[in-house]
Amino acid sequence: MSRLVNGARSFSTTASSLFADATAASQSVRQSSSFQVFRDVPSIRGLRRQLLQKDRSVGFVPTMGALHEGHLSLIRQAARENTDIFVSIFVNPTQFGVTEDLSSYPRTWDTDVEKLEKLNEELERLGENSASAGRITAIFAPTSKVMYPGLPPSSEVDGYGSFVTITPLSTKLEGGSRPVFFRGVATVCMKLFNITTPDRVYFGQKDVQQTVVIKRMVEDFHVGTEVRIIETTREHDGLALSSRNVYLGDRRRTVGLTIYKALKAAEEVYLNGKNSRADILGAARNVTDSVLSGQESLSPCERALYEVDYISLADPDTLDELEVVDPAKGAVLSTAFKMAPLEESKPGEDCGLGDGKVPVRLIDNLIFGPRP
Amino acid sequence: MSRLVNGARSFSTTASSLFADATAASQSVRQSSSFQVFRDVPSIRGLRRQLLQKDRSVGFVPTMGALHEGHLSLIRQAARENTDIFVSIFVNPTQFGVTEDLSSYPRTWDTDVEKLEKLNEELERLGENSASAGRITAIFAPTSKVMYPGLPPSSEVDGYGSFVTITPLSTKLEGGSRPVFFRGVATVCMKLFNITTPDRVYFGQKDVQQTVVIKRMVEDFHVGTEVRIIETTREHDGLALSSRNVYLGDRRRTVGLTIYKALKAAEEVYLNGKNSRADILGAARNVTDSVLSGQESLSPCERALYEVDYISLADPDTLDELEVVDPAKGAVLSTAFKMAPLEESKPGEDCGLGDGKVPVRLIDNLIFGPRP
Repeated sequence: MSRLVNGARSFSTTASSLFADATAASQSVRQSSSFQVFRDVPSIRGLRRQLLQKDRSVGFVPTMGALHEGHLSLIRQAARENTDIFVSIFVNPTQFGVTEDLSSYPRTWDTDVEKLEKLNEELERLGENSASAGRITAIFAPTSKVMYPGLPPSSEVDGYGSFVTITPLSTKLEGGSRPVFFRGVATVCMKLFNITTPDRVYFGQKDVQQTVVIKRMVEDFHVGTEVRIIETTREHDGLALSSRNVYLGDRRRTVGLTIYKALKAAEEVYLNGKNSRADILGAARNVTDSVLSGQESLSPCERALYEVDYISLADPDTLDELEVVDPAKGAVLSTAFKMAPLEESKPGEDCGLGDGKVPVRLIDNLIFGPRP
Repeated sequence: MSRLVNGARSFSTTASSLFADATAASQSVRQSSSFQVFRDVPSIRGLRRQLLQKDRSVGFVPTMGALHEGHLSLIRQAARENTDIFVSIFVNPTQFGVTEDLSSYPRTWDTDVEKLEKLNEELERLGENSASAGRITAIFAPTSKVMYPGLPPSSEVDGYGSFVTITPLSTKLEGGSRPVFFRGVATVCMKLFNITTPDRVYFGQKDVQQTVVIKRMVEDFHVGTEVRIIETTREHDGLALSSRNVYLGDRRRTVGLTIYKALKAAEEVYLNGKNSRADILGAARNVTDSVLSGQESLSPCERALYEVDYISLADPDTLDELEVVDPAKGAVLSTAFKMAPLEESKPGEDCGLGDGKVPVRLIDNLIFGPRP
């Protein structure tokens, strides 16, 4: 184990010995060599130094694995803007609260690697027609001990450790129900940025508060990187892609789409010239209330219930709630739903990973741009 | 002003327009061009990038100005190990508590620059006999707005902002009486390290808790720099150099030396083979108690009173208090004194800057190395 943990290696051997850590499945994977997998810091730093000396550019895409099209769209964008792409796969313990779903967070190492291999082949083909298309050069998949070499990482609000805190931004919206979340995100991102020293980092618009917190962190701490925010990837009907969607199953997926419909209803009000909180959020509430009433009238084996955690209309930089949108500046409309576990399932029903028993928290948002 | 704030410049003109910020005096200075003064981030980053491309090494010495021989010894060490030395001069507001001496902290821009110029001449002479001697290339003297571009920097324990916290280390010793101190230090150092991306950073042993906190921060956040700790510089009689010593005056300086005598008495006990806290700290307490009794018996125009804030015997890595020193590992013996203002002065007496009315907090420490 120690030989592997301490060195960089071409991704061409059985991965089982590499992933004793809980953050990755210990299954064998197919052979490949289009990128290297790094498990520790000195080895990926060595690669970074080489790239720097060759004047190549690095785009960095931090992930917790369970890769979906949303992640791939970040990587595609990074490939347009950099010669080399580093992808990290690390399920960061400090951003999960003590009662949250760290242990049930999906870990899908083999399919993740397969997706990245395929994407590199796609980028290769694209590269033949364009000088600028980069490739995935490195996967960084550290252990928790590498990322948290001091104290064991704490998920307690008052826990000890070395943390980056960004307040008051981190206390709003998602931070209201997840008090350690953005401390964990900012902390792990600062570490990852220090390790990979990327020219550009890529985040999805879907986690809008995360994008605001990271932009603030990069500005306040003078991190020498450019933060690039990429539009949310959605399914054909508008559902935002999320690693947690695998837990939904058919019934909760259909009802879960309400989150998008509510946002779109509110957006329409804004685009039609209304600026007041009451008008905009009222339209969203109408949708969420009427769908929920409809569900409640169904039998337990037919319905999917949810709770709206918040619907927020906020300033794009401070995330302060707005009574009136300044159409010259726009706003962020964001919301979180808690999809309850299914009460009863029907024979043969697709209830998703975990048989419909896992509660699923969905978030989504739309950016209201400036409006004439 | 904006032209100067936004650009790097050779240090060859009147500095008055450069230093509207409270962190530097607005007085003119003598001409020179042996280093550049940088007031903002993009300009010093540009220099750093050039040095990187030329494969030169950067040693970084962060200071709050009021330079003394202790700082110069850090720079001399940096010159032995790097081709280029960056010195920052920035009185960091977030490490001063709301009731602390931020406004009275000595600001001595002109003499600081003069000392650095002279030191560069010395390094030049040394360099003639040695290939390895580096030079001071850059002074980084940012405004508070540059260092804290988001919210105004807060000195409140619960104040909002973007901070690095290192607990429980930061709560011990100095952190006990100065609850925001190490949060401020860690925060500003993370910013400065990100801006200057040095190969090595230099800190004095005198601020021992600072050295432990910074080493932990660099390790936990994977900051790509080497932390070098340089021995405390002392006057002929042992008093540790400190920017705050200028406030002491003759009488408090003489009595203040007790801090060193107490540490040396305790060290002798350790070196003579004793390991227990009671034996070691008892020796230190004997010194501090007897000197204080002596002072108390004098008249108010003769005496200088003090309070011992703490005397600590602690583990070198965790700063946990020790009941018994493990002689294989050693320990850190550290102490803080509060020198009270003089009650009465005598005609013609040298009472120091501020006429003896400024309370002065002194700290000092000795490292107990492993002992056979």
